[in-house]
Amino acid sequence: MTETATQGAATAQEETRQQKMSIILYSGTVDKLTAAAILATGGVAMDMQVNIFLTFWGLLAFKKGAWKDPEQQKLPAEYAEFAPMMMEAVQQNKVKPWLEILQEAREIGDVNVYACGMTMDLFGLKLEDMEDIVTDIQGVAGFVAEAKESGITLFI
Amino acid sequence: MTETATQGAATAQEETRQQKMSIILYSGTVDKLTAAAILATGGVAMDMQVNIFLTFWGLLAFKKGAWKDPEQQKLPAEYAEFAPMMMEAVQQNKVKPWLEILQEAREIGDVNVYACGMTMDLFGLKLEDMEDIVTDIQGVAGFVAEAKESGITLFI
Amino acid sequence: MTETATQGAATAQEETRQQKMSIILYSGTVDKLTAAAILATGGVAMDMQVNIFLTFWGLLAFKKGAWKDPEQQKLPAEYAEFAPMMMEAVQQNKVKPWLEILQEAREIGDVNVYACGMTMDLFGLKLEDMEDIVTDIQGVAGFVAEAKESGITLFI
Repeated sequence: MTETATQGAATAQEETRQQKMSIILYSGTVDKLTAAAILATGGVAMDMQVNIFLTFWGLLAFKKGAWKDPEQQKLPAEYAEFAPMMMEAVQQNKVKPWLEILQEAREIGDVNVYACGMTMDLFGLKLEDMEDIVTDIQGVAGFVAEAKESGITLFI
Repeated sequence: MTETATQGAATAQEETRQQKMSIILYSGTVDKLTAAAILATGGVAMDMQVNIFLTFWGLLAFKKGAWKDPEQQKLPAEYAEFAPMMMEAVQQNKVKPWLEILQEAREIGDVNVYACGMTMDLFGLKLEDMEDIVTDIQGVAGFVAEAKESGITLFI
Repeated sequence: MTETATQGAATAQEETRQQKMSIILYSGTVDKLTAAAILATGGVAMDMQVNIFLTFWGLLAFKKGAWKDPEQQKLPAEYAEFAPMMMEAVQQNKVKPWLEILQEAREIGDVNVYACGMTMDLFGLKLEDMEDIVTDIQGVAGFVAEAKESGITLFI
């Protein structure tokens, strides 16, 4: 590459960087799932592509139907006392269920939800066991390759 | 823009990026509040502007007086056994209370603490209910706009 | 610097950025230690230098021998019911112990594990009290200086 071409590439990389948000969604408690969905909405509002990599507890939360099964709703243990207040806020429609927030973000913008291949193997899951919003299985190296070009990468 | 102007912009963007740290302060346990305050101090020491976006449990911890109310001090449940040791370390002045660490960081450098508008609404809070260090209310999109130009963005 | 030199520097900075991953390893539960080790492996697979800054509970988990002491294995309290399944997966070799994953990442690529100086002081620890993979003590400002030039920085 000539020096000018290299400089042009740097400009393009910085532009790409500002257009991508990567989220490693590791946690499976309702509060953090909601936070991740709201941050994805914020990314979409700023015209960013949002790539979500579901792993571990976060992946289990996306098993078909888990989001509306009261038995599978968790809060961090130290905040268990807040559970009734949270549920009430959802029922009063002050906060939408996290999966709906994420679905809406995806209707507005470019949101990709990937399942971590290693976690899928560990729990013996297949893509058809997951909510429809999960469209692909991804390896950790593939995720890292996207994240290193992202302006924002979060571990939630 | 001419090509040269574009290249100049890329240089400026990288410089801006290295001068900004963004923290989504989501957790409200004393240990993580302390970690966030110390990281803010590290950012300031490196001449970075530090923007903290308080949300959810992190926001509740900044309600006026909460930081010194023993009833509102929390540790992650799996580490509850460490609480006496932590309190002792604070009393022996080995670790300062997190709010003081943050106030000192702010005296030395450029630290902004914003309250998440959506969380304020959810809990029915107003700016005057919060510690003085919280100077403004911010939306998630506004935070994302700042974070995507930051060299470091953390979800704590 | 001339304008051309400045532009060349911007290109170099973007290249450096994509070659570095920084992890603040704050949590000490087995699930998150495993996630951090796997992400380090992903970074190494993408030819990135991985710098891990051990702090607080994450640092305690690297005390010599702690990784194989059943009494010191923790899961987040809200997931305590999963502990037997996790232990079984490790015993069946579906998941390797996190320290082995990290050691393997280090054999393949450039992985540095630093202990946070402030946490070492707080707990009265010295470098010889830590697993051999921990090679140095680092201050928070030193870590921030590295992280602000990294393409990916995670707080785990």
